[in-house]
Amino acid sequence: MNNLPRRQFVKDSALAGLGMLSFPGLVRAEQGAKIRIGLIAVGLRGQTHLSEMLKRDDVEVVAMADPDKYMMERARGLIKKAGKKAAVEFGNGPHDYKKLLERRDVDAVFIASPWDWHIPQGIDAMNAGKIVGMEVCGALKLQDCWDIVDVHEKTKVPLMVLENVCYRRDIMAVHNMVKKGMFGEILHLQGGYQHDLREVLFNNGQPGHDNEGVEFGAKAFSEARWRTNYYVDRNCDNYPTHGLGPVSPMIDINRGNRLLSLSSIATKSRGLNRYVTRTAKEGANHPNAKLKYKQGDIVTTQIRTENGETIVITLDTSSPRPYNLGFRVQGTDGLWQEQGSGEFDTGLIYIEDKSPKHTWEKSAEYLKKYDHPLWKKFEKDATNSGHGGMDFFVDNAFIECIKRKTEFPLDVYDLATWYAIMPLSGKSIEEGGSLQEIPDFTRGKWAQRKPVFGLGEY
Amino acid sequence: MNNLPRRQFVKDSALAGLGMLSFPGLVRAEQGAKIRIGLIAVGLRGQTHLSEMLKRDDVEVVAMADPDKYMMERARGLIKKAGKKAAVEFGNGPHDYKKLLERRDVDAVFIASPWDWHIPQGIDAMNAGKIVGMEVCGALKLQDCWDIVDVHEKTKVPLMVLENVCYRRDIMAVHNMVKKGMFGEILHLQGGYQHDLREVLFNNGQPGHDNEGVEFGAKAFSEARWRTNYYVDRNCDNYPTHGLGPVSPMIDINRGNRLLSLSSIATKSRGLNRYVTRTAKEGANHPNAKLKYKQGDIVTTQIRTENGETIVITLDTSSPRPYNLGFRVQGTDGLWQEQGSGEFDTGLIYIEDKSPKHTWEKSAEYLKKYDHPLWKKFEKDATNSGHGGMDFFVDNAFIECIKRKTEFPLDVYDLATWYAIMPLSGKSIEEGGSLQEIPDFTRGKWAQRKPVFGLGEY
Repeated sequence: MNNLPRRQFVKDSALAGLGMLSFPGLVRAEQGAKIRIGLIAVGLRGQTHLSEMLKRDDVEVVAMADPDKYMMERARGLIKKAGKKAAVEFGNGPHDYKKLLERRDVDAVFIASPWDWHIPQGIDAMNAGKIVGMEVCGALKLQDCWDIVDVHEKTKVPLMVLENVCYRRDIMAVHNMVKKGMFGEILHLQGGYQHDLREVLFNNGQPGHDNEGVEFGAKAFSEARWRTNYYVDRNCDNYPTHGLGPVSPMIDINRGNRLLSLSSIATKSRGLNRYVTRTAKEGANHPNAKLKYKQGDIVTTQIRTENGETIVITLDTSSPRPYNLGFRVQGTDGLWQEQGSGEFDTGLIYIEDKSPKHTWEKSAEYLKKYDHPLWKKFEKDATNSGHGGMDFFVDNAFIECIKRKTEFPLDVYDLATWYAIMPLSGKSIEEGGSLQEIPDFTRGKWAQRKPVFGLGEY
Repeated sequence: MNNLPRRQFVKDSALAGLGMLSFPGLVRAEQGAKIRIGLIAVGLRGQTHLSEMLKRDDVEVVAMADPDKYMMERARGLIKKAGKKAAVEFGNGPHDYKKLLERRDVDAVFIASPWDWHIPQGIDAMNAGKIVGMEVCGALKLQDCWDIVDVHEKTKVPLMVLENVCYRRDIMAVHNMVKKGMFGEILHLQGGYQHDLREVLFNNGQPGHDNEGVEFGAKAFSEARWRTNYYVDRNCDNYPTHGLGPVSPMIDINRGNRLLSLSSIATKSRGLNRYVTRTAKEGANHPNAKLKYKQGDIVTTQIRTENGETIVITLDTSSPRPYNLGFRVQGTDGLWQEQGSGEFDTGLIYIEDKSPKHTWEKSAEYLKKYDHPLWKKFEKDATNSGHGGMDFFVDNAFIECIKRKTEFPLDVYDLATWYAIMPLSGKSIEEGGSLQEIPDFTRGKWAQRKPVFGLGEY
């Protein structure tokens, strides 16, 4: 066990109090050394983080763990293509990531594995003293959220939840407008994950989107190997963070405010059966056309907050539809709502005393004018990064916070709060839409914690 | 008591079985005589019904009841201007409508009074054998909904709930598309009442919208005399029908389907204090700026149905915003969502295999193509009627059903179901968003009742 003794890496208690540790890799970083990165899971999502890291001079990718040989090969190819030094590989089964965590030359890890691995790997990483950048999803059970918070509080190792949509350009412009008070006091927020995932959930087992495969599980490729099983076994908002994440910093969730309770309802389940029936050569006779998918096609969750705002989030991933996360941000002075996928010109804004009375204005001029300072600063760097530049921002924040030993803008409490929506929405749906209390994972610290998202230099 | 003996007006049991009576006025109507109308309350809304009636040759406005002398005078003026015979007036206090109900020469009444009068006046009218056209609102208490259903079932006198938005041109085109199966099996619906009512809720006591008055109750004019008190005393979805009404026939509510349960949450209350503070000369010192309004600014209600659809309705009437009821109709094959106020070109549609993949289409071409047959038929008649022609349709359906003795497309069970949202949402909000069962006011008949809305000749 190569964990650093606790006394060694918590030597700077002031920094530790901010949630950021001072341990040898970081001491080196202060002296200009590179942050040494390990990647846990290098599937398609892990590869986008890898690509971001390979563009940077201030990090070094030293190790990668993934049991999937094809994905490891692709990742290795990306490193080679970038002309960087090969990373040590840990591909000997799903538990080989633990060997990566034993290495003294890894300062921080990205975790981008199938959902059921997030919490155990995050806990293992923190116990090994590795700073964690954790991909989004929901928790399998509520206790998982407490477990990861408890390990963070025990080890003091910081964790950032990598919700890239928080950094979408229109979202950050609106966040900027919110913080300038342009919408007045915020009242109501909407968002969601409304994305036709049918071609992600089924394929023919070969790399690439084939548009005709109807397999999932062992016969399938990439996410369909494991993600689709959630649609068979569960009925919940299984991907709450893309909707809830971006609006949370607007109303200072876990930093002066908190989520109180939720209620969730789900429609009947039709989309996946319909898709397989339409897509399979065997039509309705294909076993996956006849399968019972427990997941309702559209899940609505309404949430109350401590400070009196309401939030509605929607999961809509099994039906034919254009991508649209469906954001709405409304305050006492006006509102923004959008029907696009992040473009500046697909939303509407109304602000009292600015907009013509009772008349929508197109959002583009507002969003240009209030473009977030971080987007102005990093626009060039973000160009060509994944998901319209969002991936640059979320990974840049992760690395820059580590370099500066400042606290993450989206941390373990945000992760626990957002991940909790999955099990709580499932319980609510199972009980016909019953009210579920959302735990305060900060154990009261929310009242003192100060907002940081979007306010710093990264 | 001039009620017709029950044996006299239920002589045609087959027609009564369809919910439509055969009593003397209607027998006369069959022979070409005019339907004789009484108006209970001739405030601004009652006057729109009056105006619709005055355009028609097949009705005669014989009586009006309203304690408000100014409104009675305006109504009298409308009749005179139309060159029609003066109506008998009942203006001797709020209970004088009972004398109108005693008249043998009234076949049917419109009830467009302040909300607390709807149920008692509707019950009195049915007990007096008068067919009822009832304006929309919500019930003060759940028992009201049972009471009006019980009196209807006892008397067999039919009642139509006059939800005009059901007849909005885009709504009917989408209804047409739904019934043609273009969206596939319906999964999820949204709607609401998102209308900045601040200038309706406050005025200076003089007729007309003055844009500066901040009074309500006895010092105010028109709706502000009574409607604003609901914002002081209650916290609920106080106007559910404009959102829920239009989507209900799309999924055959009370006619093969029913609402099961709801959960409601409300934001903090800020809008009305802010409005008075901004508007009053005294600013924050005006008593109405300091008043505690119990009504949250934005109320969200999520509803489950027997057949597995979900519905989300929103009340948003205290904040600055453009009018937009926020409809969304989504099925297994595609969806429509709109951000306007009924125009054909302010919505988006996506239909699998028709729309370019993953790409919104503007709604206008679809809505033109699937314009409802009733709108094609009555377009000329609807021109210049209130609320973009909707008022023509709802009143025309009321009269034509009476003339033909056919059942109303929106009836007492729809009224009870929709009105129930007000007390049930209030209870849910009071309990933090608890789950509330929505009663089956049809007492099981929903399973056999057949859809009629939009399918007939009116």
